[in-house]
Amino acid sequence: EDQELLLAAAYVSDAQYNRNVPFETSPQAIRLYHFYNHWTMRAATYFFIWVNLALALFEEPAVFPLPFLVTSIAEVLCLTAFFGRLVHFAKVTPQKVFWKDTKNICVMVTIVLTLIDLVIYGSLEAVNIRGVRWSRALRPVFLINFPESRQIRRTFRSIRNTLPDILYVFLLFLFSMMIFSLMALKLFGDRDLRTVEGSPYFTNILDIAFELYVLVTTANSPDVMMPAYELNWWYSLYFITYIIINTYIFMSVFLAVIYNNYRKHLKNEIHTLAYLKHHKMTEAFNILKVKVGTEFVVKEARWRRLVKVVAPDVSSSHLELLLRISDEGQKGHVDKVNFLRLADLLNIRVVAINIKKHPLETWMPRVYQSSTSLLVQKMVQHRQVRWSQIFVWVYDVIILINAIFIALDEKDSLISYAEWLFLSLYIIEILLKLYTYEPSAYFGRKQFWNWFDTLIIIAALLATVANTTIQARKYNSQQVLDIVLILRILRLLRVIVSIQRFRVIVTTLINIGPTMLTFGGLVLVVYYAFAIIGMEVFHGKIHFLDPGSGSPDALVCGNPALKDSAFAQGRYCKNNFNDLASSLILLTELTVVNHFALLADGFALVTHQAAKLYFIGFHVVVVILIVNIFIAFILEAFFVAY
Amino acid sequence: EDQELLLAAAYVSDAQYNRNVPFETSPQAIRLYHFYNHWTMRAATYFFIWVNLALALFEEPAVFPLPFLVTSIAEVLCLTAFFGRLVHFAKVTPQKVFWKDTKNICVMVTIVLTLIDLVIYGSLEAVNIRGVRWSRALRPVFLINFPESRQIRRTFRSIRNTLPDILYVFLLFLFSMMIFSLMALKLFGDRDLRTVEGSPYFTNILDIAFELYVLVTTANSPDVMMPAYELNWWYSLYFITYIIINTYIFMSVFLAVIYNNYRKHLKNEIHTLAYLKHHKMTEAFNILKVKVGTEFVVKEARWRRLVKVVAPDVSSSHLELLLRISDEGQKGHVDKVNFLRLADLLNIRVVAINIKKHPLETWMPRVYQSSTSLLVQKMVQHRQVRWSQIFVWVYDVIILINAIFIALDEKDSLISYAEWLFLSLYIIEILLKLYTYEPSAYFGRKQFWNWFDTLIIIAALLATVANTTIQARKYNSQQVLDIVLILRILRLLRVIVSIQRFRVIVTTLINIGPTMLTFGGLVLVVYYAFAIIGMEVFHGKIHFLDPGSGSPDALVCGNPALKDSAFAQGRYCKNNFNDLASSLILLTELTVVNHFALLADGFALVTHQAAKLYFIGFHVVVVILIVNIFIAFILEAFFVAY
Ligand code: NA
Repeated sequence: EDQELLLAAAYVSDAQYNRNVPFETSPQAIRLYHFYNHWTMRAATYFFIWVNLALALFEEPAVFPLPFLVTSIAEVLCLTAFFGRLVHFAKVTPQKVFWKDTKNICVMVTIVLTLIDLVIYGSLEAVNIRGVRWSRALRPVFLINFPESRQIRRTFRSIRNTLPDILYVFLLFLFSMMIFSLMALKLFGDRDLRTVEGSPYFTNILDIAFELYVLVTTANSPDVMMPAYELNWWYSLYFITYIIINTYIFMSVFLAVIYNNYRKHLKNEIHTLAYLKHHKMTEAFNILKVKVGTEFVVKEARWRRLVKVVAPDVSSSHLELLLRISDEGQKGHVDKVNFLRLADLLNIRVVAINIKKHPLETWMPRVYQSSTSLLVQKMVQHRQVRWSQIFVWVYDVIILINAIFIALDEKDSLISYAEWLFLSLYIIEILLKLYTYEPSAYFGRKQFWNWFDTLIIIAALLATVANTTIQARKYNSQQVLDIVLILRILRLLRVIVSIQRFRVIVTTLINIGPTMLTFGGLVLVVYYAFAIIGMEVFHGKIHFLDPGSGSPDALVCGNPALKDSAFAQGRYCKNNFNDLASSLILLTELTVVNHFALLADGFALVTHQAAKLYFIGFHVVVVILIVNIFIAFILEAFFVAY
Repeated sequence: EDQELLLAAAYVSDAQYNRNVPFETSPQAIRLYHFYNHWTMRAATYFFIWVNLALALFEEPAVFPLPFLVTSIAEVLCLTAFFGRLVHFAKVTPQKVFWKDTKNICVMVTIVLTLIDLVIYGSLEAVNIRGVRWSRALRPVFLINFPESRQIRRTFRSIRNTLPDILYVFLLFLFSMMIFSLMALKLFGDRDLRTVEGSPYFTNILDIAFELYVLVTTANSPDVMMPAYELNWWYSLYFITYIIINTYIFMSVFLAVIYNNYRKHLKNEIHTLAYLKHHKMTEAFNILKVKVGTEFVVKEARWRRLVKVVAPDVSSSHLELLLRISDEGQKGHVDKVNFLRLADLLNIRVVAINIKKHPLETWMPRVYQSSTSLLVQKMVQHRQVRWSQIFVWVYDVIILINAIFIALDEKDSLISYAEWLFLSLYIIEILLKLYTYEPSAYFGRKQFWNWFDTLIIIAALLATVANTTIQARKYNSQQVLDIVLILRILRLLRVIVSIQRFRVIVTTLINIGPTMLTFGGLVLVVYYAFAIIGMEVFHGKIHFLDPGSGSPDALVCGNPALKDSAFAQGRYCKNNFNDLASSLILLTELTVVNHFALLADGFALVTHQAAKLYFIGFHVVVVILIVNIFIAFILEAFFVAY
């Protein structure tokens, strides 16, 4: 009896959370499976995944250096945890399924490879040879391949399914680039033209191909065109044609193909999920069903116990509500159709709304209901649309004036007094609202904008107090000062609260937040792998030396190969792969694409021309694939929301 | 009787071409209306529109200078033609409708304004004062406002409908920029930081706002970040946050809103068009109907005469086909349902396919049917999929080798012989195809790829012959040489013909060609207006002087205000507004966005800082609005095609 309930609960829970893990149905396996899905176990797994990823901050080249012994012990600990999780999973799932699943194999292979790498690197370290910690680039494998990261995996699958379609467009794009490269070689190669820097212009087919690839990113426009354009303005038509075809049309086609596949894939996934949910709920029903009259049903008592197992935190009023929905006729049992809906019902969040009187109305009804008081309330609620909009407009104007005051010099004591005035006005507004609306309703769970508004004001208040204290005591921690400053400026965000159309846009953006987080995971995986590779290849080649020191090395980023390069002249020395933070920032710059070629050239100069392939690879993966998927995400989210 | 037929024909013709012009139904007006829609009249209108637009090439500042008298006479001629067209239209359409239509008012006002401007400019010219030819910026009005440009107007309407939605997103975007500007001012303003050029960094709120706007275009990334980043790497988070919010999220939201509106609008337009078409066809039916039995019908003879009036060029076999479709039961009349379909039926292009024997088969059947001949035919048709794909692959490899030969130095005589070898191989391929397929079928009207393939080879053949002649005669026209060169390289496009997936992508792109042309018209309108304004404001401020002359003026583009500017150092002097061609090329560069700030700075230096507003305005209109509509175009086209 209890076993059956546990098994059914496992099915329902899987349906509720869209989990899709085949598990053994022996009593012990079911209990282990419940334990496997417990939130503490999932949290622990995520903890170790993040610790493992974060190790790159402490390993050579480090932001915060720690000895190899410490980081390697931490890594072995993480690997042990991953291995434990995998063994746990192996006990839950049928053996055959376990060994067929690529995810498990991936995790195991990565654990073994990492151990091998650790041993080799450690031994070399012992005899003072610097090895390459290549297995670090594999760390994101753990983030992707544990069953918890279903969303990220789904996105990866979507990318994989898009690849064949993308590939042909990409090949056609390369072909077009090749034709244009040949034309450029023939048109400009023998003209003895020079670039602004004085180097020969379009004489080597490989250089031309690279320049034209960069032109797709727009990063060398219009410089790449100028020498030819100076010769004859007709030649600009060559470049304009190239830009229209390759930069505009091809890049849009990439977006179109990716977006199209993304939608198709999304539809398929939703169908599959719905099918699996139905299937699991039917399994659960079949376990619990009894025959009443001609139809199979689940008895009320049993249904209650099931819900208690699936959702132990559910309140009794919520449980009664669910029951009343599922057993409409109050027959004492739930039929199949209603039972199958349970997984979806459990996902609906129930908000209890209490229509209470305002406490002030209870305490002093005469004052609260007086005509002045009612006028104030009407104004705050802006019910009478015409004139009471004034309340909103007045505060918008106040915020605007506040913005101007912030822009002005704050050393003026008048302005620092004004600061307090504005804050008081904001606090009065909040108080007026609390006077008008019942406080527990105003700060209800779903009242996002009220919370937002209040928190901003509290933050600004705290920041202003902190600022005054700091100024009085001549305390001087720059970071604290900066945070205080940002908090004080953020109060201007209140404008969003008061303009309806702004709120709609921001709400849409906030609603896609969870999906964005998935996307963030995807970006992290790719960035991390590229950062590790970048650190292994380019580490220590470029240094930032304080230009104030006057050392001639500072002007060439500590590397004479950069003499007279645009990289050094642009003072780009900080853009290097010398630690994880710098690498990630540099990769972000490369994602933005501007000065892409300048950065790639810099690293090619200090290593080898082939280094450009790393940058082109990054561009293809991140800008052509991932950024387009991001745009597809936002497009789809907006179509659904509007 | 004849009058009725003409009126009905006018309705059917309007339905066929989706025209929506209310016209008078008096006999004279109908005849005038038929004349108004005649292709010669439409062609003449377009001719004058283009002449009028092209005048900017010949007016000061001119690419090909002509005296003011000549251009002004030409302009007056164009205006007369436009006025004539308008009068013609006024005779056709009811008076009330004519004066209510903004299009007509627009055209009239523009004609009057242009005349006023001409007179003023001419008078000033007479007394040797240089005036401003401001009315030239209005010329695109004619392109938009004649009934012929329905498509462009539709796109404009779509943009106008999108504006309210876009506006709020844009305001929120500006608001976000303001908050970030304030933060930057407070965070970096007092730090005494310097940019690479040595100017103060982030000290003035207007400069900050401009820099941050430019960062949205990515044009100053990562330079704008470097001084703060050098101070402390935490500050890079400020810029990364800014880029994620404003460059990625907001720009995607712009695309989403525009795309969403574009689709909605497209759907509405299609509904309206379908409704109007139905309405007009019903009108036509009501004119021609007679009662037969219980239902109203159109008699066969009358129907034939109608079709002859609507489509005079229709062949008699085509007419019979249409009749057989419309009068399925061969009852001698067309019923209402079938009559309403006529407009759509007329739009369907009919291709007559003749299944003829190959001429060689008729002339020498024995040879053509011999086993060797059949083998050749099978190979060319690659019917037996496995081994006869070889034919295609062999030619792909030949093209690849050809590409390599083109890249090599052609002064080598071996390579110039190889040229002929490749050409012969291609011609043999075409001949083999003509041997296999019946020639008139192979060059059928819908056989786009066969035509493409053959034309490319013929062009390459002509180019190679021309090249040999030129080399022999030491003839040296650079432009002819360049065209010959391009034609010879374009033969590599044959690869597209042989790879199925490439053909699908290119076919999709070619199918959206007509819509792209509409889009081109839209772009032209905007570019033209901006170019004229740019020429009036920035003309002659920046000159390109041959740097070989060694004149110090050449290094500052003839304007000392550009001394030490990035504009002059980057040798950008050719990017100026000194004539229409240069202006359009510069606007294209601004559309590509890269070095947007550098170009804007250059023109601000030689005039006034406010000049940057011109560039920001161009960016908002072209990059945020029009480029996104272009992407929406392509996305939609691909979704429909795939
Ligand atoms: Na750029």
